[in-house]
Amino acid sequence: MVFTASQIAEYLNGTVEGNPLAAVRNVSKIEEGEPDTLTFLSNPKYTQYIYTTEASVVIVNRDFAPEQPVKATLIRVDDAYGALATLLRLYQDSMPKKTGIEQPSYVSESAQLGEAVYVGAFAYIGENVKTGNNVQIFPQAFIGNEVEMGDNVTIHAGVKICNGCRIGNNCIIHSGAVIGADGFGFAPNSEGKYEKIPQIGIVILEDDVEIGANATIDRATLGATIIRKGVKLDNLVMIAHNVEVGENTVMAALTGVAGSTKIGKNVMFGGQVGVAGHITVADGVKASAQTGIAASVKQEGQGMMGSPAISAIQYNKAYAVFRNLPDLRNRLENVEKKSTNE
Amino acid sequence: MVFTASQIAEYLNGTVEGNPLAAVRNVSKIEEGEPDTLTFLSNPKYTQYIYTTEASVVIVNRDFAPEQPVKATLIRVDDAYGALATLLRLYQDSMPKKTGIEQPSYVSESAQLGEAVYVGAFAYIGENVKTGNNVQIFPQAFIGNEVEMGDNVTIHAGVKICNGCRIGNNCIIHSGAVIGADGFGFAPNSEGKYEKIPQIGIVILEDDVEIGANATIDRATLGATIIRKGVKLDNLVMIAHNVEVGENTVMAALTGVAGSTKIGKNVMFGGQVGVAGHITVADGVKASAQTGIAASVKQEGQGMMGSPAISAIQYNKAYAVFRNLPDLRNRLENVEKKSTNE
Amino acid sequence: MVFTASQIAEYLNGTVEGNPLAAVRNVSKIEEGEPDTLTFLSNPKYTQYIYTTEASVVIVNRDFAPEQPVKATLIRVDDAYGALATLLRLYQDSMPKKTGIEQPSYVSESAQLGEAVYVGAFAYIGENVKTGNNVQIFPQAFIGNEVEMGDNVTIHAGVKICNGCRIGNNCIIHSGAVIGADGFGFAPNSEGKYEKIPQIGIVILEDDVEIGANATIDRATLGATIIRKGVKLDNLVMIAHNVEVGENTVMAALTGVAGSTKIGKNVMFGGQVGVAGHITVADGVKASAQTGIAASVKQEGQGMMGSPAISAIQYNKAYAVFRNLPDLRNRLENVEKKSTNE
Repeated sequence: MVFTASQIAEYLNGTVEGNPLAAVRNVSKIEEGEPDTLTFLSNPKYTQYIYTTEASVVIVNRDFAPEQPVKATLIRVDDAYGALATLLRLYQDSMPKKTGIEQPSYVSESAQLGEAVYVGAFAYIGENVKTGNNVQIFPQAFIGNEVEMGDNVTIHAGVKICNGCRIGNNCIIHSGAVIGADGFGFAPNSEGKYEKIPQIGIVILEDDVEIGANATIDRATLGATIIRKGVKLDNLVMIAHNVEVGENTVMAALTGVAGSTKIGKNVMFGGQVGVAGHITVADGVKASAQTGIAASVKQEGQGMMGSPAISAIQYNKAYAVFRNLPDLRNRLENVEKKSTNE
Repeated sequence: MVFTASQIAEYLNGTVEGNPLAAVRNVSKIEEGEPDTLTFLSNPKYTQYIYTTEASVVIVNRDFAPEQPVKATLIRVDDAYGALATLLRLYQDSMPKKTGIEQPSYVSESAQLGEAVYVGAFAYIGENVKTGNNVQIFPQAFIGNEVEMGDNVTIHAGVKICNGCRIGNNCIIHSGAVIGADGFGFAPNSEGKYEKIPQIGIVILEDDVEIGANATIDRATLGATIIRKGVKLDNLVMIAHNVEVGENTVMAALTGVAGSTKIGKNVMFGGQVGVAGHITVADGVKASAQTGIAASVKQEGQGMMGSPAISAIQYNKAYAVFRNLPDLRNRLENVEKKSTNE
Repeated sequence: MVFTASQIAEYLNGTVEGNPLAAVRNVSKIEEGEPDTLTFLSNPKYTQYIYTTEASVVIVNRDFAPEQPVKATLIRVDDAYGALATLLRLYQDSMPKKTGIEQPSYVSESAQLGEAVYVGAFAYIGENVKTGNNVQIFPQAFIGNEVEMGDNVTIHAGVKICNGCRIGNNCIIHSGAVIGADGFGFAPNSEGKYEKIPQIGIVILEDDVEIGANATIDRATLGATIIRKGVKLDNLVMIAHNVEVGENTVMAALTGVAGSTKIGKNVMFGGQVGVAGHITVADGVKASAQTGIAASVKQEGQGMMGSPAISAIQYNKAYAVFRNLPDLRNRLENVEKKSTNE
């Protein structure tokens, strides 16, 4: 399909600067922009490329002020990144979706699938599973007994959802993620051996949750591990048993949260963050990558850093001195010498 | 099923305090306790909830001394957490288990399966595989050629066990775990390229081992990567080629152990711990979350912390000063000024 | 098969020291060497074992100078580890390879498979997939629509390659790896919710790439996430959207690279390294395990350590002082007292 700059601008409530008939067939990155493509400029780090890009049309923020001539046609909008996202969603929604049950697959007789559902080949749908409408279950996915899920859920290839877990509307679960494996619960006996504590709880994903590839969310010992509405977890994230993650919290890859911890709303974790068990993290806390949160964080919006974590401000100040510790030691030695000589 | 407090107490060798006929139908968490449920109190952090819980019966340690009136009936036992585990195991063992070979699945003609074995749909059983009795192989699991496993093994959905690996009795392997992928072995050549070293060894899991979801245990280059009896590894743990992990060692999620390292018995690692290759870690060592063990740890029972790791005691003392390094630097500057002025 | 020391030495361009007719049937580790096996000595840490090993033949570096009598027959070569690798490859290449399409599997009618291709049971081959020759696709692998791959590719059991991704010649992808899941891209809206940015790019693996078990390489938002020729990534590594990894770079397990970052050639990362998004890492950089690279590293070959990372030399010097910070503080206090008393 071909669209003109003016068609796109109209759709985005934007204004065209340049040739309104400039035509695009595809989308590209600004630094690799090819003719007849649309691109965007949002992150200022990439501003340099707007002067050289071969892309025909560039979406920019309304206040973008070029410092050199720009060859491409510009579309000015309030939020260039958001506008791009809108176009990409439009593009993606225009793609045809499969429906029906691909063979061979295994669907229990007691399963109740909604309308316009796709079940891919080699998918396994256990007993008494219930799904809403427009659910996509890709090949080789495993949906255990008694699992319930809402409408518009996407279960990518090879996802495993274990018995009894509940998946809200619009959730997206990426390949290889495991929802509802046993929590890591053992009681040491008198000989130092570990006796397994059966994990009979479940996992609940509320609406609009996205879970990354090969992430793992363990089932509760009792009750439920709960991932609240709008949470986005990146690949290889680990959420232990009985954890609760608050609304609209995001965690980058390889982050782990230990058992029974409660994470607030709108929290942001960088990659490889670790959080101890049985603590609480307040709403809006931001932890830098590799932070190790060992104790409850009570102040909302607090930035955290270090392992064990302290406030990011304090950590950065301390780390600045840390880098020069040998110098500090030498200066101390000098003072010691002076003080001894006197 | 309904049980009374006195029936449960008898089973647990406990004593009832309150209504011996209090009836329970289910198990709940103490902070969410509902009527007609059983709960327990073990971690003192949760003591407050015993005064308000709606649960009908609470299992407590024999020495629990309430500071306020408790509405629920109490069952006093030597170890409340262990007693709960006992009940949960009883509950779980009462669940029916599938047996037989679900279709479609792929079972090599040369495979020898024991009695009362379940093979789920889309599971793949390679050539000359041998299993003991009461083995559960859930859907979409892959059991490579020549794999041998003992009795009462549970292989969850989507687990991959590669050629030649051996799995002991009572092992539990959670969804997505990969046992026996190639070790990460390459030899750089003169051009800076890496030549693959074929990995022709295997993985041995001894009896009573539990492996978490999406964990990976690599096969040895030569010989075997060995996970000894009673080891419990959490989700997303990585054990590299030729590692040996000693009996009853536990590792929390996202921990990685590099090649040819030997970990002792009864070792405990928190989450995201890393251990260098070709070293040894003594029995009973405890490493806090995110610790990076870069050199052999020879002292049994040593606590470790930091990256690179030092003793936990030393690390905590040093970190306490680290937090206030800017203050330390300022004090040094003051002393310097004084000493210069004199 | 049985080989003599002189046959092996001839193949390796080595010289025999001892009995040229010493026969071997298998390969063993030097510390576990059994009679009638071949072993090798490369890492000096294992030198002690050459005097006691029961192995019949040991491959050693040409300059190896024994300090005690050695019972085994030696084969001297330029590079003992490389020679072993050569023999193991010979052994592995002698193994029979499966070809043909195992049933049941799902192969789209539009898929074009090369010659001598194996497709395992329960593998899924999407629309318009194209493969080269001698490709091995093991059971339960998922190959999405429009995926293209070269010759001699090995896709292990349960690998997921999502739509549109391209895999070069000789690539090896281990079980559970996910190539081409959506990048972690969201735009926060005015209510603090996150809107998904569709990820319409792909992943390109160039030739000779090896990807570890349960690793994840996300597709680009636009364009491609690119893994250059000869890159080796260990298990559970996470490469985010739009990252580029340069030729012959190696990353150990549990390492994560955030979005749009460009990693140079011949880079070496230890385990659990983290790299921030939108930065560049120069060729030949070496980061120790658990390093957190938060800003671009411009100097080629730089060693990095710490979180946030600084040069390894600087970090080690600072950390040496860090360990003794309580002592430093005490010394400062002493000097303060003296200076106050004066």
